Amino acid sequence: MNTHLLLVAHGSRLEQANDEIRRLADTLAIGSRYAGVACAFLEIAEPSISDGLRRQIAAGARRIVVLPYFLAAGRHVGIDIPAQVEGMRCQAPEVEILIAEHLGSAAAMRPVLLDLAFDCLGELS
Amino acid sequence: MNTHLLLVAHGSRLEQANDEIRRLADTLAIGSRYAGVACAFLEIAEPSISDGLRRQIAAGARRIVVLPYFLAAGRHVGIDIPAQVEGMRCQAPEVEILIAEHLGSAAAMRPVLLDLAFDCLGELS
Repeated sequence: MNTHLLLVAHGSRLEQANDEIRRLADTLAIGSRYAGVACAFLEIAEPSISDGLRRQIAAGARRIVVLPYFLAAGRHVGIDIPAQVEGMRCQAPEVEILIAEHLGSAAAMRPVLLDLAFDCLGELS
Repeated sequence: MNTHLLLVAHGSRLEQANDEIRRLADTLAIGSRYAGVACAFLEIAEPSISDGLRRQIAAGARRIVVLPYFLAAGRHVGIDIPAQVEGMRCQAPEVEILIAEHLGSAAAMRPVLLDLAFDCLGELS
């Protein structure tokens, strides 16, 4: 199945922060098993979630995983992203659009955090 | 050396989001090699960064790693957190306070994200 991944970030007024997300989507694409990997933004930056989904559908996506790049399970994760995804589900019912758990929920964040702290210490004595 | 870890998040008006951070700090403490692990908030929630550092110093910390729980390298990571840390360095020059790289900079985020997407798919076909 032609499955795409859409990394969804909040969007920032700092264009360099949005570019960080674009680069992250590019690195996720490397060696991945998705037919396509792209990013979209909930607000402020482009493309919007709808536009991001639309582009992937136009590129032939039959299934899309929306991945919320958010640390907290607040309103954006619980309401705003699902609402925009639902709108596209109505417009393109032939495409399966799934929403993954938000980043902050991943148990695997623990070792990432400990490694970051460790790198800054050099050696914990 | 008596080294502590201070996880610094933005702080939210949603108390459940702040509680998520507090629980994350608790899980980071389990089995870690730090003498203490705690969290603090840049704004809105308590304790503040200064209060968080002060408590760890009062508990005997000789070295503290401040770990920014932020995805983007914006103003908060680049200016606001370092400014608050610098204030405490002046007040307690005998304590070494280091600032780790922010979470979003970790290359190890890539597999975490791909795993989250994969979990939602079940099996990528």
